[in-house]
Amino acid sequence: MCKQCGYTIHSAQHHFGWDNALSPAERVTPGSTIRFECLDASGGYLTAHSTLDDLIALDFSKTNPVSGPIYIEGAEPGDAIKVTLESFKPSGFGWTANIPGFGLLADQFEDPALTLWSYDATGLTPALFGDHARVPLKPFTGTIGLAPAEPGQHSVIPPRRVGGNLDIRDLSAGAELYLPVEVAGALFSVGDTHAAQGDGEVCGTAIESPMEVVLTLDLVKNANLKMPRFTTPGPVTNHLDAKGYEVTTGIGPDLMAGARDAVSGMIDLLSARYKLSPVDAYMLVSTCGDLRISEIVDAPNWVVSFYFPRCVFE
Amino acid sequence: MCKQCGYTIHSAQHHFGWDNALSPAERVTPGSTIRFECLDASGGYLTAHSTLDDLIALDFSKTNPVSGPIYIEGAEPGDAIKVTLESFKPSGFGWTANIPGFGLLADQFEDPALTLWSYDATGLTPALFGDHARVPLKPFTGTIGLAPAEPGQHSVIPPRRVGGNLDIRDLSAGAELYLPVEVAGALFSVGDTHAAQGDGEVCGTAIESPMEVVLTLDLVKNANLKMPRFTTPGPVTNHLDAKGYEVTTGIGPDLMAGARDAVSGMIDLLSARYKLSPVDAYMLVSTCGDLRISEIVDAPNWVVSFYFPRCVFE
Repeated sequence: MCKQCGYTIHSAQHHFGWDNALSPAERVTPGSTIRFECLDASGGYLTAHSTLDDLIALDFSKTNPVSGPIYIEGAEPGDAIKVTLESFKPSGFGWTANIPGFGLLADQFEDPALTLWSYDATGLTPALFGDHARVPLKPFTGTIGLAPAEPGQHSVIPPRRVGGNLDIRDLSAGAELYLPVEVAGALFSVGDTHAAQGDGEVCGTAIESPMEVVLTLDLVKNANLKMPRFTTPGPVTNHLDAKGYEVTTGIGPDLMAGARDAVSGMIDLLSARYKLSPVDAYMLVSTCGDLRISEIVDAPNWVVSFYFPRCVFE
Repeated sequence: MCKQCGYTIHSAQHHFGWDNALSPAERVTPGSTIRFECLDASGGYLTAHSTLDDLIALDFSKTNPVSGPIYIEGAEPGDAIKVTLESFKPSGFGWTANIPGFGLLADQFEDPALTLWSYDATGLTPALFGDHARVPLKPFTGTIGLAPAEPGQHSVIPPRRVGGNLDIRDLSAGAELYLPVEVAGALFSVGDTHAAQGDGEVCGTAIESPMEVVLTLDLVKNANLKMPRFTTPGPVTNHLDAKGYEVTTGIGPDLMAGARDAVSGMIDLLSARYKLSPVDAYMLVSTCGDLRISEIVDAPNWVVSFYFPRCVFE
């Protein structure tokens, strides 16, 4: 039960892609608190009993549903919607997949792979991966945004100026997100909830997990934001960093190549040390490893570093 | 005094650039602990009394000296040098500069600017910037590496596979760094010490500060490392994150453009909120703001985020 919620958006009230012509699921005044029953990125298709064949049969036109849209009274282009992420109620089920053609190292990992997770939805103790690894959890919403001004249907995959599939790991409970409004009413939607993810979401998926999200929508008139911005109420890696990190690097004139080298280096290191298959290491690090840009000024070579939390194996 | 040190490399024992033909300052056996008296990146030219005119007159052929090189007995190509960063003894003086033509936003910040810092070298309490901002300190070494196999003199500015000007903020006390050896004896050097820096070093300089560094050099035979890697003994942002972060984003198909947008967004935000000049905000965030890659898989748009620690103004 959500005592402060004025509305519930049920799991059936979702849409695929972004389109500013969609009818609102609800119209609210600024300051409203809403509960969303969010489906996972497979739209409920993958379950605790799914197999690799199910993943192969996944209909990609039905992936990444978002709940909404919510029309916020008074919102106009040039304003911002302030989203306060109040709380998450995770389901305890999750999945991580390598989907052919998708992910930072898609050229190296051509075969589909699926990991199913069962985690402690109440205590959120670290979730077991294989026999040894334990991934700390921090639920958040991967896709959160507004309808773009450009008419027509737009793919949900790429994030945009109005937000969308941002996959920012720190949009968890307590964060305040500001999104630039491009259409009257803003048309807010949310979904693609994750139980855990590292910065980068390198294999293309996180711990994809259905959950309830409670959030409050406020209106900031004439904010004139160029891009989304947010605040966090406190530390963002406390759940990961007590034992320090293993860090691999990529050095060179292209940040994308540097990121690929750093992640490949970590997959090599973990595969050798912990007897993991490379694709398992790839899926594991996507749920808890962080891509950071260590330096971006020492021309012509930049340093991208990939931080893997040692607590996962200790 | 360093009780476990077997050697001291004095500040005069430095070189400019990398060259595998340089004569060793010292020859050591693996396991040796060495104290280095590191100059700052101006080679001692900038002081607590320096002015903007001094910065303008800086001779760039005399910047970023590194102490060494150290010949490690038995090291051969294919091996790795393991560097354990034992301790830092900072000087209490530092500088941060916007140097024309250098830095992530060099096209937007064309004029030179200089900030001088006086900080508590013993207690390492956060250092005052302007009237209000306090930057948490974490001393580390910006340039640390080995001589490259390719003959001749190589600029110290770009980092390489053998390390060098990595500017990785977490190469602080307790870190263990592994560097791939390309020449007999490895020829290790270190310098460019920083009292604080954010991930990215976005304006091109950190809190540049002379200090003593004590480290131990070990040899790992046949490591066959592709790139440098390291471990940290514990959390890496404890000094920054107690009050959470302000975060700006850059969204689009190019990571470099995303990084530039995210940093520009933060400069705009801090300049407006705290009445800082844009160039002061640029220098400030270079010492404490972190560039992270939030997602790198939702084609064709990636999200780069810039995290500014709220503790600096709270």
